[in-house]
Amino acid sequence: MSTPPSERARVKRYNHIADYDPATIHAILDAMPLCHVGYVFNGSPFVTPTLQWRDGDCIFWHGSAASRMLESAECQDVCVTVSIYDGLVMARSAYNYNINHRSVMIFGKPEKLSDEEKAVQLRNMVNKTIPGQWERLRPVKPQELKATTVLSMKITEASAKLRSGQPDDDEDADFPVWTGVIPVRHEIGAPIPNPKNVPGVEFPEDGHKFKIG
Amino acid sequence: MSTPPSERARVKRYNHIADYDPATIHAILDAMPLCHVGYVFNGSPFVTPTLQWRDGDCIFWHGSAASRMLESAECQDVCVTVSIYDGLVMARSAYNYNINHRSVMIFGKPEKLSDEEKAVQLRNMVNKTIPGQWERLRPVKPQELKATTVLSMKITEASAKLRSGQPDDDEDADFPVWTGVIPVRHEIGAPIPNPKNVPGVEFPEDGHKFKIG
Repeated sequence: MSTPPSERARVKRYNHIADYDPATIHAILDAMPLCHVGYVFNGSPFVTPTLQWRDGDCIFWHGSAASRMLESAECQDVCVTVSIYDGLVMARSAYNYNINHRSVMIFGKPEKLSDEEKAVQLRNMVNKTIPGQWERLRPVKPQELKATTVLSMKITEASAKLRSGQPDDDEDADFPVWTGVIPVRHEIGAPIPNPKNVPGVEFPEDGHKFKIG
Repeated sequence: MSTPPSERARVKRYNHIADYDPATIHAILDAMPLCHVGYVFNGSPFVTPTLQWRDGDCIFWHGSAASRMLESAECQDVCVTVSIYDGLVMARSAYNYNINHRSVMIFGKPEKLSDEEKAVQLRNMVNKTIPGQWERLRPVKPQELKATTVLSMKITEASAKLRSGQPDDDEDADFPVWTGVIPVRHEIGAPIPNPKNVPGVEFPEDGHKFKIG
């Protein structure tokens, strides 16, 4: 990540707001598991929403071994985008209408994990959401690992884009309309137990660490 | 929208969870302005986050007339995906790990709007977020309209995918681990006024109607 951004990552973003700092990129990826995987199938673009997780300088996503998305993406160019809506920016003009946001785009060719690597990364997927949850679950079965494809991609060609704060429209400063920001955040609700739970099981203490955004 | 879903829309989704009902598709689009536009540039996929809005059976998005994304997307195949994270589904096994979600994918070839259509749709963009806000803003200038490209795309090839409710893992019903759902929703915070506001301007009553998700 110490190398300069590649041409493909660079052309993607307006330079004045792009950020190539790994810490910034990692923080956005860690904040939002929902991602959008773009790939080309029969010459046309497809954008599939799925869950990503990060381990070091790689991201991972998974799905059914029968998934066309995963088959189409393996070893082909993909673009994975993660974005977060942080607030509505109410400016004095429609021209300066905006939202506060954080986003990351990553370009690369994903690779399929081996069975051993899969078990490690599926554990990561679960435990990065709720620490220790993998160890509490019914253990994974060999046929489940076989039926699951996990793709990994290095975070080498990547850029972040962020906007925060008040509108930037000083040219209209005298126009008498309210301006400001309406913040948006992801609220985590109280856990809803499954009515089919085995009697006596309790919500894990670490479950309260779950957050998004 | 009364025609059967096209092959391209249909192959995209597992049939047992896909939904082609316009009302379902429209409700998801209206709930989440943040969208992900996938297009092909020099043979590689790009996924750009931007804001979409709907008017009837069309969606719209906009950007700088100098935007490579908008130039690349015009009259070319694109895929626009909108997705909402509604909750973490805690199952008894990693294999049944899931999220509750709503998503829409739309396929098509977007078209550029004329200047007259642009003004109508930019007003829609603003007023669908906060009713009447366009009329309160500093009026749009001809050079701003010129500098803005608005693309439109018919919602003809589209599908929705939804999951809600408890985990579906009766095969492990006896395994003694807590299962259930942790709901996630978008919370709208209190408006933060711009310190540079003209004294005396007030937050519009309709601003309280702003919501996401």
